[in-house]
Amino acid sequence: MSIRTPQQSAHPSTDEPSVGEFASASGDLLDRLRERTPLVQSITNAVVTNFTANVLLAIGAAPAMTDIPTEAGPFARIASGVLLNLGTPQAEQREAMVEAASAANDAGTPWVLDPVAVGFLPVRTALAAELLALRPTIVRGNASEIIALAGLGAGGRGVDSTDAVDSAIEAATAIARTSGAVVAVSGPTDVITDGERIVRCSNGHAWLTLVTGGGCALGAVLAAFASLDDDRLLTTVAATTAYTVAAQLAAAESRGPGSFAPAFLDHLHLLDADTVRSLAVIA
Amino acid sequence: MSIRTPQQSAHPSTDEPSVGEFASASGDLLDRLRERTPLVQSITNAVVTNFTANVLLAIGAAPAMTDIPTEAGPFARIASGVLLNLGTPQAEQREAMVEAASAANDAGTPWVLDPVAVGFLPVRTALAAELLALRPTIVRGNASEIIALAGLGAGGRGVDSTDAVDSAIEAATAIARTSGAVVAVSGPTDVITDGERIVRCSNGHAWLTLVTGGGCALGAVLAAFASLDDDRLLTTVAATTAYTVAAQLAAAESRGPGSFAPAFLDHLHLLDADTVRSLAVIA
Amino acid sequence: MSIRTPQQSAHPSTDEPSVGEFASASGDLLDRLRERTPLVQSITNAVVTNFTANVLLAIGAAPAMTDIPTEAGPFARIASGVLLNLGTPQAEQREAMVEAASAANDAGTPWVLDPVAVGFLPVRTALAAELLALRPTIVRGNASEIIALAGLGAGGRGVDSTDAVDSAIEAATAIARTSGAVVAVSGPTDVITDGERIVRCSNGHAWLTLVTGGGCALGAVLAAFASLDDDRLLTTVAATTAYTVAAQLAAAESRGPGSFAPAFLDHLHLLDADTVRSLAVIA
Repeated sequence: MSIRTPQQSAHPSTDEPSVGEFASASGDLLDRLRERTPLVQSITNAVVTNFTANVLLAIGAAPAMTDIPTEAGPFARIASGVLLNLGTPQAEQREAMVEAASAANDAGTPWVLDPVAVGFLPVRTALAAELLALRPTIVRGNASEIIALAGLGAGGRGVDSTDAVDSAIEAATAIARTSGAVVAVSGPTDVITDGERIVRCSNGHAWLTLVTGGGCALGAVLAAFASLDDDRLLTTVAATTAYTVAAQLAAAESRGPGSFAPAFLDHLHLLDADTVRSLAVIA
Repeated sequence: MSIRTPQQSAHPSTDEPSVGEFASASGDLLDRLRERTPLVQSITNAVVTNFTANVLLAIGAAPAMTDIPTEAGPFARIASGVLLNLGTPQAEQREAMVEAASAANDAGTPWVLDPVAVGFLPVRTALAAELLALRPTIVRGNASEIIALAGLGAGGRGVDSTDAVDSAIEAATAIARTSGAVVAVSGPTDVITDGERIVRCSNGHAWLTLVTGGGCALGAVLAAFASLDDDRLLTTVAATTAYTVAAQLAAAESRGPGSFAPAFLDHLHLLDADTVRSLAVIA
Repeated sequence: MSIRTPQQSAHPSTDEPSVGEFASASGDLLDRLRERTPLVQSITNAVVTNFTANVLLAIGAAPAMTDIPTEAGPFARIASGVLLNLGTPQAEQREAMVEAASAANDAGTPWVLDPVAVGFLPVRTALAAELLALRPTIVRGNASEIIALAGLGAGGRGVDSTDAVDSAIEAATAIARTSGAVVAVSGPTDVITDGERIVRCSNGHAWLTLVTGGGCALGAVLAAFASLDDDRLLTTVAATTAYTVAAQLAAAESRGPGSFAPAFLDHLHLLDADTVRSLAVIA
């Protein structure tokens, strides 16, 4: 956890951050994001491109969706982070995703795999396996998707999760250990693991599941934060915390999912490090 | 009309619901939708995917946009309902649409055809004819599109309707009788027919035409409601009524089409059966 | 400047409008737009299609996104104006763009080229050169894109502009002189030139850059206004002024980019000619 100085550690015998240090570092990383404006290439599904770009802009990152072959690879080399989301994987996008993952690996660009609705749908399931073998920096999905990706279950019914988050811990740990990725399982409590440590982030609001792209856009924010520090367990916790703290602030003043979405973008924009630190619920 | 009990009928000599029964059943079906969370596969145009998904989530359905060949068919078998919208019909989507319609027919999944801008544009017009021959459960369009689809006119100029709704009744009736579909013609008053009975739904607000996807998203809601009861004249009237009641509630507190859109999503989410029943204007 | 009557001219020795006349004519053209409801075909990137269509609807134009081969050309013949935006140029869209540009030229339909992120990305850069050779009516981009298009620089890093607007004046003038297009460079002050005269429009707000499509949708509005008068320097100034006046009115009552977006659509809808005239900052 490079952002932490040694004397801040509550676990002097290990290099692992304490829960309080995760909260503190989440605020630090938000400040760092605003200083650097990371450029995030999002090759994502047709439903959520607009919301994803607006989330990145609101929090302080720069979005780009360079998603065609021969352009996706060169762009992944200059991007700060890359998101590959399998929601509507047309042929050109599939080719572009493999190109981007390979170029990102070559250039050292962190990249996030979001295996939307893998399981019984053949094209995306094969593509997810191919991309997982390229060793993503982070894997994000709901419980059903993580279980399906690990080969332990039969997948969900589209983008819903029909499994509880805790039921996916075994699968998440297995993916993390075999691929080297940090794995984030979204749900009422987000569970994040690097294959050894398991961190639970419990901010957020259910309306985030009633705005399409509420989960998908988090994948892009994970990519943005991954560019800020080499400790990707930490950056994933920080991104998740900042994102879900903004969601709960927005929900508190909204009437339904319609008014929630613009309020969420406002709060991502207005969010400051102290608010993240004081409201973070991390265990 | 399976939702109606015999003693509620005002037309004891027939099996046709009365106008008051349509309003009452519209509320019942909204409750049923919230109980079942129907999964709606929307293969729709690139402009409205996001809004369509948010409309489905707001009213209580689950959206998915599985729109590539070899995935669209298997998904249509497990979906509660399917929407095929011809707004931006790229080659992969066209193949996926035919695959989804065939699989939906095979599995008994109700499906909606929205023949956006058919008439003089060659690709979508040929595709609409092909899909119509596969006998959609419901056809939804504006007057120009319905007239063009019936081969009675020359089509509109894009997504506008240049024809009055009543001018499309002959075309709508012809389509219904030859294809077996319930046909819904959108306009200030929506006209819905199964080829025999004609029902007019007069809720709504003009701002729904100033939010792109205001008509297209209704197609997805028609698919959601079609999964709830075998009487598709009834489910189409109910979906249209719930949708347009939410629109007029939203418009009453909005300043323009920008603030109307999130308010509409809020009201779809907050809408209850009694409000639908008391505000429904059905003739 | 056909909208101006001779006695209104402050430059009687030339046919060039004065700054005050630009402001006055901007209001006139907004009124004319509402009378005519120009039909704007937008072949644009996947991120901004929804916002672009909503902007056109809000200001009083009619959007259509007919973006596949064999349909794009016929549609460009009947459209009032065409936007070609290179943000996510899939193969079918690329073919459709060339088809639309050729048909637009043949039919006399004005068209706008937005060379998003041209420079080091190979596909769009080659396509931009091909389209520029077809002599667009208007070219719109940020400083980096305009410099790259003129072959004078190395391009930006995606959709950001890393160059100041004034640094692009030489490039903009060169493009205008060689292609015959009016060139609009977006920034805190928009610079617009026909290769001879340079006009600066200074309305707007920074939040327009934090809503994805804030620049791209302006391209569609430029196409709408271009259909209203043959003086495309004037129509470009008028479109830019109306658009950015609405933005600053919206920003004044918003809390962040999330609430700004619907407020912006409301103000585009509510905007009247006198407000445009009184708030215009043109030099």
